[in-house]
Amino acid sequence: MNQITMKLQADPLLLSALREDITSEDVSTNAIMPQDCRGEVELLCKQDGIIAGLDVFARVFTLLDETIVVTYEAADGEEVRQGQRLAIVRGSIRTLLSGERVALNYLQRMSGIATYTHHVVQLLQGTKIRLLDTRKTTPNMRIFEKYAVTVGGGCNHRYNLSDGVLLKDNHIGAAGGVAEAIRMARAYAPFVRKIEVETENLDMVREAVAAGADIIMLDNMPPAMMKEAVRLIAGRAETECSGNITEENIRTVATIGVDYISSGALTHSAPIMDLSLKHLHRI
Amino acid sequence: MNQITMKLQADPLLLSALREDITSEDVSTNAIMPQDCRGEVELLCKQDGIIAGLDVFARVFTLLDETIVVTYEAADGEEVRQGQRLAIVRGSIRTLLSGERVALNYLQRMSGIATYTHHVVQLLQGTKIRLLDTRKTTPNMRIFEKYAVTVGGGCNHRYNLSDGVLLKDNHIGAAGGVAEAIRMARAYAPFVRKIEVETENLDMVREAVAAGADIIMLDNMPPAMMKEAVRLIAGRAETECSGNITEENIRTVATIGVDYISSGALTHSAPIMDLSLKHLHRI
Amino acid sequence: MNQITMKLQADPLLLSALREDITSEDVSTNAIMPQDCRGEVELLCKQDGIIAGLDVFARVFTLLDETIVVTYEAADGEEVRQGQRLAIVRGSIRTLLSGERVALNYLQRMSGIATYTHHVVQLLQGTKIRLLDTRKTTPNMRIFEKYAVTVGGGCNHRYNLSDGVLLKDNHIGAAGGVAEAIRMARAYAPFVRKIEVETENLDMVREAVAAGADIIMLDNMPPAMMKEAVRLIAGRAETECSGNITEENIRTVATIGVDYISSGALTHSAPIMDLSLKHLHRI
Amino acid sequence: MNQITMKLQADPLLLSALREDITSEDVSTNAIMPQDCRGEVELLCKQDGIIAGLDVFARVFTLLDETIVVTYEAADGEEVRQGQRLAIVRGSIRTLLSGERVALNYLQRMSGIATYTHHVVQLLQGTKIRLLDTRKTTPNMRIFEKYAVTVGGGCNHRYNLSDGVLLKDNHIGAAGGVAEAIRMARAYAPFVRKIEVETENLDMVREAVAAGADIIMLDNMPPAMMKEAVRLIAGRAETECSGNITEENIRTVATIGVDYISSGALTHSAPIMDLSLKHLHRI
Amino acid sequence: MNQITMKLQADPLLLSALREDITSEDVSTNAIMPQDCRGEVELLCKQDGIIAGLDVFARVFTLLDETIVVTYEAADGEEVRQGQRLAIVRGSIRTLLSGERVALNYLQRMSGIATYTHHVVQLLQGTKIRLLDTRKTTPNMRIFEKYAVTVGGGCNHRYNLSDGVLLKDNHIGAAGGVAEAIRMARAYAPFVRKIEVETENLDMVREAVAAGADIIMLDNMPPAMMKEAVRLIAGRAETECSGNITEENIRTVATIGVDYISSGALTHSAPIMDLSLKHLHRI
Amino acid sequence: MNQITMKLQADPLLLSALREDITSEDVSTNAIMPQDCRGEVELLCKQDGIIAGLDVFARVFTLLDETIVVTYEAADGEEVRQGQRLAIVRGSIRTLLSGERVALNYLQRMSGIATYTHHVVQLLQGTKIRLLDTRKTTPNMRIFEKYAVTVGGGCNHRYNLSDGVLLKDNHIGAAGGVAEAIRMARAYAPFVRKIEVETENLDMVREAVAAGADIIMLDNMPPAMMKEAVRLIAGRAETECSGNITEENIRTVATIGVDYISSGALTHSAPIMDLSLKHLHRI
Repeated sequence: MNQITMKLQADPLLLSALREDITSEDVSTNAIMPQDCRGEVELLCKQDGIIAGLDVFARVFTLLDETIVVTYEAADGEEVRQGQRLAIVRGSIRTLLSGERVALNYLQRMSGIATYTHHVVQLLQGTKIRLLDTRKTTPNMRIFEKYAVTVGGGCNHRYNLSDGVLLKDNHIGAAGGVAEAIRMARAYAPFVRKIEVETENLDMVREAVAAGADIIMLDNMPPAMMKEAVRLIAGRAETECSGNITEENIRTVATIGVDYISSGALTHSAPIMDLSLKHLHRI
Repeated sequence: MNQITMKLQADPLLLSALREDITSEDVSTNAIMPQDCRGEVELLCKQDGIIAGLDVFARVFTLLDETIVVTYEAADGEEVRQGQRLAIVRGSIRTLLSGERVALNYLQRMSGIATYTHHVVQLLQGTKIRLLDTRKTTPNMRIFEKYAVTVGGGCNHRYNLSDGVLLKDNHIGAAGGVAEAIRMARAYAPFVRKIEVETENLDMVREAVAAGADIIMLDNMPPAMMKEAVRLIAGRAETECSGNITEENIRTVATIGVDYISSGALTHSAPIMDLSLKHLHRI
Repeated sequence: MNQITMKLQADPLLLSALREDITSEDVSTNAIMPQDCRGEVELLCKQDGIIAGLDVFARVFTLLDETIVVTYEAADGEEVRQGQRLAIVRGSIRTLLSGERVALNYLQRMSGIATYTHHVVQLLQGTKIRLLDTRKTTPNMRIFEKYAVTVGGGCNHRYNLSDGVLLKDNHIGAAGGVAEAIRMARAYAPFVRKIEVETENLDMVREAVAAGADIIMLDNMPPAMMKEAVRLIAGRAETECSGNITEENIRTVATIGVDYISSGALTHSAPIMDLSLKHLHRI
Repeated sequence: MNQITMKLQADPLLLSALREDITSEDVSTNAIMPQDCRGEVELLCKQDGIIAGLDVFARVFTLLDETIVVTYEAADGEEVRQGQRLAIVRGSIRTLLSGERVALNYLQRMSGIATYTHHVVQLLQGTKIRLLDTRKTTPNMRIFEKYAVTVGGGCNHRYNLSDGVLLKDNHIGAAGGVAEAIRMARAYAPFVRKIEVETENLDMVREAVAAGADIIMLDNMPPAMMKEAVRLIAGRAETECSGNITEENIRTVATIGVDYISSGALTHSAPIMDLSLKHLHRI
Repeated sequence: MNQITMKLQADPLLLSALREDITSEDVSTNAIMPQDCRGEVELLCKQDGIIAGLDVFARVFTLLDETIVVTYEAADGEEVRQGQRLAIVRGSIRTLLSGERVALNYLQRMSGIATYTHHVVQLLQGTKIRLLDTRKTTPNMRIFEKYAVTVGGGCNHRYNLSDGVLLKDNHIGAAGGVAEAIRMARAYAPFVRKIEVETENLDMVREAVAAGADIIMLDNMPPAMMKEAVRLIAGRAETECSGNITEENIRTVATIGVDYISSGALTHSAPIMDLSLKHLHRI
Repeated sequence: MNQITMKLQADPLLLSALREDITSEDVSTNAIMPQDCRGEVELLCKQDGIIAGLDVFARVFTLLDETIVVTYEAADGEEVRQGQRLAIVRGSIRTLLSGERVALNYLQRMSGIATYTHHVVQLLQGTKIRLLDTRKTTPNMRIFEKYAVTVGGGCNHRYNLSDGVLLKDNHIGAAGGVAEAIRMARAYAPFVRKIEVETENLDMVREAVAAGADIIMLDNMPPAMMKEAVRLIAGRAETECSGNITEENIRTVATIGVDYISSGALTHSAPIMDLSLKHLHRI
């Protein structure tokens, strides 16, 4: 993760997470460590997968104590194996103990997302289709989760409501039709925005192409309809397939020729990757 | 969720999540709604499960606009069915559109946790065992996730490092033994804290009982050892079974007679419950 | 200004500005008003121009006291005349006095920008060229200043570094050329971003067109070169003219056929519009 | 700018400004710089004037990355010339690119104010009159703008409503007269405050003198009346001339013998000084 | 306390204090009140004294729940008696229970300060001397403590380092003498500031008068020296007596003719006034 | 004070306190120190007592300027004597002057609490009774005041409403009785919480014992009743004596055999310990 994003966006969230876990002090640690001393602990992998978020993991410790040193033995995006050592963390034992859980909570979730994304990307191998995330992220975790998707080989869709235009059914309804919605968006949005429209049938697709949509989302369409939609669009807009993509049907979808497939599950339902800090000892 | 907790703890997090999703404005909505107008939209369930977080869902909207009214047709903890309408949200259509994703992101995750917790609690039915969560929560989501666990029928373990003492392997190592760790914790911690110790074998269990631990965690023990531990403890401390509890082995564990089973998966790996806002129309 | 943007983005800045002006209390007002009482005051225009920011003006008062009522007699975007009454503010006299300066500081600056933008837009009348702002805004005022530009008839360029791609000379240098910079940006940026490139000569223009840039900025080019650039691009990318646009040369530029002209002066050097609160009296 | 003020007051505003410009990441820079590397860039002056805010400019970069080093070749308050190099900034090229706009936005505005202030101060040369700023500053910019005024040779009036007493027409009206307003202010305000009163005619001036005002503001008075006011006051209070001071009439006012002239334009309408970062290269 | 100060300065501190006392939820209250219901409780005085801070007390509750209503039966500054009922608080019983301690912690401390200040002011009755506070306040409590001093009949000295000039021994030493320190302060400080100087002997007093100090502090002087100092000053500056004022010697000091006596003890050592919430019942 | 608690909890409060004292700049210091230079100053004790808070004192300076170095000549908990030098602070003289008051305000209050606590603990010497604090702390000072209590030899009761259960008269009333309140608390509270109940008579004590309370508070009981209560409880619960403990009656109470005595006065009414910074000189 970029160091500027870390300072500006991540740091306040990491501090908030640390304050969530330590509202006055770490009673257990302070009880058994009346005097602080230096030690080291190993970050171990308890499951195969793609590691993501090592800088975030390290930053949790250095926010608590700038003298903590994390020595990486793996890098974000690497396929790691159960039992593999990924890093050594050295410094004040109190800090190692007090920061452990928050650091792991970030790393486990991010690695879980990268692992699951990587798995889905594998299913698309051999096609030109790119896998997209959505805005179905965990609140106050988007910066971390979107990063984890890219580590896993996926691509980011818009970051939020302010930096991308996506006209959904409710927008189209409010505007009074696909063409009118596109026209209004083009007039209103900063000109650097592409206009994406969600379509549910071929009439909407035709209208979107005619109105000059930059991206057309094919939402919950049966494969045959999707195929016809891609034919109709004929490269005049980028195409995104969305909705009900499962491991079972993704290969079918992959043959249809859409440019992108988006999946909320990447961020909202990936299980974590199991990791732990072990072998703490004084140095 | 208690209204005071909502104001003091949840509100700043909800605002932060809204600012994550709207850094300047909702371009799509503002483009197609040059004039605001009133409407209503339905919260629909797309999956069976236990609903949790309706007040949080509503609060996202009322933080944006205090005139939004949410009429509930279900209550937290209720078993809901696919297709069921859970609430109607009425007010400014702009707000309905702009707040939708953040409101659903909270509700889906909380309901997913409640649903999964409820499922595991069912497996323990007929026993006196209570199901506990852990600190393996999503950063900046703990207040919501711990609440969802209770909605699903689980119990909360300590909230964080400051309000509970749990002496783990690393603490015991640093203190120089189970008995010494307990002694140090009792001397240091506010007297209102119970002292919990993590044990990995029967010697540690015996030492913990002798040293007067209030709660003894049996960590990753095979069933036979756990059984012997419970026998040794003989009610002199509460017992918590932790580690590698799966749907497969939980019935076995349940017969052993521990008081509590804790599971990180409740909060770190429950998939979301699918929900959506549909049928937006003007009123 | 949209009410959601007001709550999420503007409110914290307005409160910060109020705290800048009142670090403990408004000593003068509290000294002469030992008892609070209700009054009203008129917002008067002391200069012709385009008014912008009335909701922000009102919000300053209602943040201090939700019972303040502002009755508008003009609307954002309206041409107003010296001496014209634009609004009446009613409520606690203490609040009217204590909030006056901050409310006017926002309104005067925003109206100054709208007025100046409107003036430049007039110069482009009869052409299809749209006038753009830049990121040369006052720190912590962007949301207000970009809004004021639209009120004055201008269009917004990207909001910030995160929601638009603009490859400048330094980026192109770092990438090793126009084509390579565009290729890298397309690979890295979320696919919803258009790619804009800054060019300084015709070779760069040709390279940008060939590499598929969505928008080509013609930076500081002499009119003849700009004309040739537009001819070369031939509609394959949108064109933005930037740099050294003055009131004198803008008509010349306007005949060249670029799509957009951007001007930092709209936000960094527009003088304020003079406004005042007068005729305070009890009611 | 004093380093303590920088830490306590400026830093939070600078961070807020950086977050305004980078809500997730600097997409353009990160796209073309997959690996960070070190470089340097020159701060160049594109216009003659008085430079102000170099420490603020530098602080924007060091807040992003504490290893950035800024080598000054000019100092605040210096008259600088078009083409002159003012500083070299060295460090991570990513940081140089991502921080550039915010750093310049501050420096350009502050230098613009210093330049304009210096210009007006020159007009008063040969008199004992001191030039004052007002509270007509840009919201959330006061600390920077008031500092820039002093760099340009002006003096600061009160910082805000809490640290100075200034009884204006509305206060006097509410109190029921000049004398009563002064009496109330003296009774209420901390005794370390001087009492300043705004007067519009000679009767008010007489009343203010009699009531013991420390400072008397002569507001929008014609030169003859102002002259008579100064004569009446006869050194028993300091005098401040305010309102409608233009470059044309300031020499006339200067001969009248007031102690201070205040001007809102110093902070609300000074155009920026044009500056840029050029010649970025790796080192 | 002024409502604007309450919103801008007090509210963030009150919320911070509430979050200090409720980091997740009020476990005891929520346990025994599964359903919220309305009730009322009485604010009773357990000690004679001067009540101060009723609006702050009420605000703690209304920040938690805007439907709480506090009916006052006393007003700030009133002498109250043990056993007297000062207010009734009505609304959600959960809020009454959860807000009680923080509300009382503010009210008890503020009333303690007002009571002690009032006591010392009584000792000065019959003289023209005004009693001042200092900056020896509890961190993050200044706005409340300085207000309490005025409620008790004292006057506020400067609010902080930014709004008043006080040249102490260390400043004088650094400047190289009393006269030089005054000259530097007059040149540097905004002209609305009075210049106060701390003196320890008659030479310093003479120098301060000659240099035109507005206020002269007589620090830790024996009564005879103080008397001589007042004679020397002869009304050319205001005089403040500071240091080691006790209940015993204050009458002696009071006869000397200084204008002000300042006392840090008002805010740093006043014991609280005992108050409690009693007779909670449902309504 | 633990360094992690310092970073997470103390730092934001220290910065807030510094901003309370410096809203724009330290005018006096900056006036007489146009150029910064290095110096040192001594922390002197002006009163006998127990010193507490040296790290907090030092942190105030290092937050302003990380190059300040504090050399301790005493440690928290040490009995110090009038005239003793406790530390030397070295670094920028501006910082020494500007941070002095806030640093001392913390240290004086914390040392005052430690001193008073130590005094009361002395009165209990020879007994096994431990002295407890309460939640009657100064708002936004709890982390500092509770720490000072431990430095003085006292013990901390619960930190706040979220980390301890204490069922008071109002809770018991709402629940419908002691037994029911305990039952509800046990069902609701995380199982790591001990349940404490406040009792006012022997019936309540009996009911509390029968219901399995972990801790029984004997509130405002006459000594004879307290004695009988302790006899009834017979070690089945811990006992805490609360209310109206004075220096006079504490020895009587001490003979009764309760485990704990709690006293709000430790934090709400301890006078400060007088300390000062002296002998500033350049180095």
